[in-house]
This record gives sequence, C-alpha cells and structure tokens, in this order.
Amino acid sequence: MSICYIDGVWRPTAQCTLPVTDLVIQRGVGVFDSLRIYRRKALAITAHMKRLEGSAVSAGIMIDGKDIIKDMTRIVREGALRDDCPDEGDCIAKVYITGGDSIDHGYFTNPRYFVIFEGGTKILPEEYKKGVALQPTSERRPYPLVKSINYLFGLMQGAGLDDVLECLYCPDGLVMETLRSSFFICRDGKIITAPIGSVLGGVTRSIVLELAREAGFTVEERCPRVEELALADEAFLTSSWKEVMPVVRVGETVIADGGSGPVAAHLQKLYRENIDKWLDK
Amino acid sequence: MSICYIDGVWRPTAQCTLPVTDLVIQRGVGVFDSLRIYRRKALAITAHMKRLEGSAVSAGIMIDGKDIIKDMTRIVREGALRDDCPDEGDCIAKVYITGGDSIDHGYFTNPRYFVIFEGGTKILPEEYKKGVALQPTSERRPYPLVKSINYLFGLMQGAGLDDVLECLYCPDGLVMETLRSSFFICRDGKIITAPIGSVLGGVTRSIVLELAREAGFTVEERCPRVEELALADEAFLTSSWKEVMPVVRVGETVIADGGSGPVAAHLQKLYRENIDKWLDK
Repeated sequence: MSICYIDGVWRPTAQCTLPVTDLVIQRGVGVFDSLRIYRRKALAITAHMKRLEGSAVSAGIMIDGKDIIKDMTRIVREGALRDDCPDEGDCIAKVYITGGDSIDHGYFTNPRYFVIFEGGTKILPEEYKKGVALQPTSERRPYPLVKSINYLFGLMQGAGLDDVLECLYCPDGLVMETLRSSFFICRDGKIITAPIGSVLGGVTRSIVLELAREAGFTVEERCPRVEELALADEAFLTSSWKEVMPVVRVGETVIADGGSGPVAAHLQKLYRENIDKWLDK
Repeated sequence: MSICYIDGVWRPTAQCTLPVTDLVIQRGVGVFDSLRIYRRKALAITAHMKRLEGSAVSAGIMIDGKDIIKDMTRIVREGALRDDCPDEGDCIAKVYITGGDSIDHGYFTNPRYFVIFEGGTKILPEEYKKGVALQPTSERRPYPLVKSINYLFGLMQGAGLDDVLECLYCPDGLVMETLRSSFFICRDGKIITAPIGSVLGGVTRSIVLELAREAGFTVEERCPRVEELALADEAFLTSSWKEVMPVVRVGETVIADGGSGPVAAHLQKLYRENIDKWLDK
C-alpha cells in the first residue's frame, strides 16, 4: 500500500488530498523528484534534493531558505524506515512541492509539499532482455532543467501507441531525452548522450556515466543526430526505476538488430553491483 | 465568497480538495476554461463548453460521450442562480476536467471534474485608460488549441517584473497571444491578430472581431511581426475578465504614445453595449 506524508502526518496515500485552490491544480505550478529506495535506504538523496530545490527556485516557488528541503529529506528517511513503507522499503519516494494558493509578481510565496511512497512492479530479467520502444517527437521540452509536473504535452506524444514506453524529444534533428529518462546510444565503442542543460541532470545518468568511465568506456556528451539512431550499435535509457534499460526501437527505426545489447547489460550489472556506494548511510 | 461544485455537491471552495493521486497534481493532466457570468447569465456558454470538450479530447482525457460536458453546463447555470454565487452572479466560473488517477496507453479513463465560481476586482475606467504592459518571450506555446493547466513555464516569463501583466508569446519573431489573452494591434486603420491554430480560439476574441467587422473595421488574421509593435497605432488584448484592455508597452517597446487608443475604447464600449446577445437565455 502506498503511504504519504502531507500536512505533518503520515496517511495511506488514498486518503491524502490537496485544496483545489492550490496553483498546482489550477495552473500546473509544481515541481517534483523521484527517489529510488533500496532496502530502506534512498539512493543519492542529496543529489535528488538539490535538484528538487533547483527546480523549485527556477519555478519561482519560494522555499524559504532550505527548511522545506531539509524537512523533505527527513521525511524520505523516516518513510523508508516505517513498517508500512511499500515493499519493505524497496520502492519509490516521490517528493512534490506545489505553488500553494497565492502568486505575488510571479512568485509563489506559500508552497505546500508532500512525499508519496509507492511500490512498483519489479522489472524482470526478460524485460531487460526485450528492451523498450520510444516514440520520437520534434517537440522541444521547455526548461529541461526544471523538473516540473507539466508533462501533459509530453504524454500526448505517446498516446494510443501500443508497445511504446514514452516519447523521445528530438527537436531540430537532435536527440535529447525521453519523457522520464536519460537516453544514450553506443556507436563505434563510444557512449553518446546529450549534455546537461539540453537535458535534465539525471541522477541515474550521472552514476551510470561514472561507472562507464571507470570501466574504460569513452563517453561523449553531445546530442546525437536523429540519423545516428539508425547507425547505432545499441541504445538504452536510464531512470531511477528502470535503472539501465535497452531501447530497441525509436519510431520506425529499429536499433541494430532490434535486441538488447552488451553495453546496456554490462552497465546494468555494474549499477546493481555498485549501488551501495550511492545509498544513504 | 468563492463556491465550488465537486463530487456532486456545492461547498465553499476553501473546503474542496482533490486526491493527491490525481494526475493533474502528479503530471499536469488537466484542462480548463473560464466563463464570465454577467447578471447570473453565462457568456457564450456553448462556445466555452465546446472548447473545453476539444481540450479534453486532445489531451487524451476520455470524457465519455458528452455527459461530463452536459453536466458541467448544468452546473454553470445552476451556480449562477445560487444565492451564494459570488458578487450576485457577476463573476467567473472556472470549469476543470482532470486526468483522474489512471492512465491507459496515454488515455485518462477516469477523469474528475469540478467548477469554481469566484468574484474578482472589477476593472475601473481609469485602468482601461491606463492600459497594461506585457513581457515578450521568444518561447512558443505548445499546443495553443489545448487549454491545459500547464502554465508554469508561461508564468516564469513574467516573474519578478513589476508593472507587467503577463508574457506575450513571440516565437520566431511572430506575435501570437499572451499567457491568458488574445492580442491585437491596430495599424493603418486595420486590426491585426494571429489566426486560430497559431493561437487559442478566444471566445472574447471572436465576439470582438464580429463587433469590429460590423462596425466597419478591416480585420487581418495573421501574426504581426515583432517589428510591427513599434509601428502600431495601438494594441490591445481581450479576455473574459478584462474584455478589451489597451496594451501600452511590450518589453522595451512603447506602443504609439504609451497611452490607450480610440479603437480599443470603441470596441470595449461596443462589447458592453452588445453583451446581452451572447448571454445565456
């Protein structure tokens, strides 16, 4: 069962509400982040909380020094240890800061915040083997560094498409990121991925790049051109929940032979083996 | 006091909530519309409800034939006649449809909906005389025909700027619309405004254009170029609440002599005189 911390108390998420006056409902004023919890310990909690803080500040949500972030860090740690934490603390914590009810010259002076813990279907080895497909879109994601809840137009890109996980942003013929994940191609022994700024600074992305460099891979941080998808030896995405997931098709373009590749599998193995390094102490 | 219809009942808006599980909170999945109510009668209710329906369908929110729209039309009419309708039925009704808790292949199969009635500060004659300033942005509004709640990036454009009402979208050097209003310039006796598709089909926009044509004005539906702002004889915006409001400055560009112009004043007068034609029977 999912649990939520809101207004100073823990409750089943199904019982938690926000006022309809909150600008997150009326005008999409909200930022969030998702942290993977392994064995009751959050992964890279400091990086996630720093990113959340940056999103809030960019969005004009006044978070009052660092008190909200500090409190949310405490809540994530507390929730992970609770008896009713989903899947015995092997789950996701979604941290939200909303605009609250008032706007003053474009700034949101009375934010609300809450944290939802939820389980998820564990990804099976055969799913990593099979990989996922993405739908390319020429749309540009506005403000990629601000992780806001404004996902509607991104979700619309993949609507009604069977077997497609989500959209892949490819504005001006350049490959950026997917709706929820960082994206990589492998070509001629190199791993190529869009640089931070063009895309969100993915937490899993940075861990995987660190592991890849340590393992001797050459990493190029530049946006692949769309034409390179057809030439790639393999492709994969990274996210807190999916970790390192092969991408076998982008729209009509089948990547390599349409199966998962050895680099993604190797990095997924390294990720799992080294995860302790990034877990909360 | 603001009132709200949600979950089948009327309540003070301050007591109304949505579950945190609703995708409007988690991922910005929500569409809305704002109807002006004059003397307990909604303006152009059919046009607004048709637009709301179009927004919902485009967003992938399954509204189950026309039942939700029919019910919301009933709610707007019922609310306008209630004793506790704000400002004795001279107010705004904001109609929302949210994505609900579940997504199925990009479609939202269990939407929620609610209607908020709220009063507003009446705009004084001297405010129409003074006009408003806008902040230009080179950002493009995605999907202008879908009136979704995803306003955060638009709100960020005007943050911290004193004396600026909101942003004016000017992608690729073309003038589109403001965050919440339709935008017009007057030049050499013509009224020029962006065509529907480039911008939302504004309800006040279409009424004002009809009145302008009847009054003998030539209307050009094309996007003005940004350079034309400096050459304009006057500029104005239209919206349900502001009706016809002069725009006297866009960024650094002062429009004409920086005061309100005769065309906007004339159209505002015509609008007020003819409003009965568009009111609910």
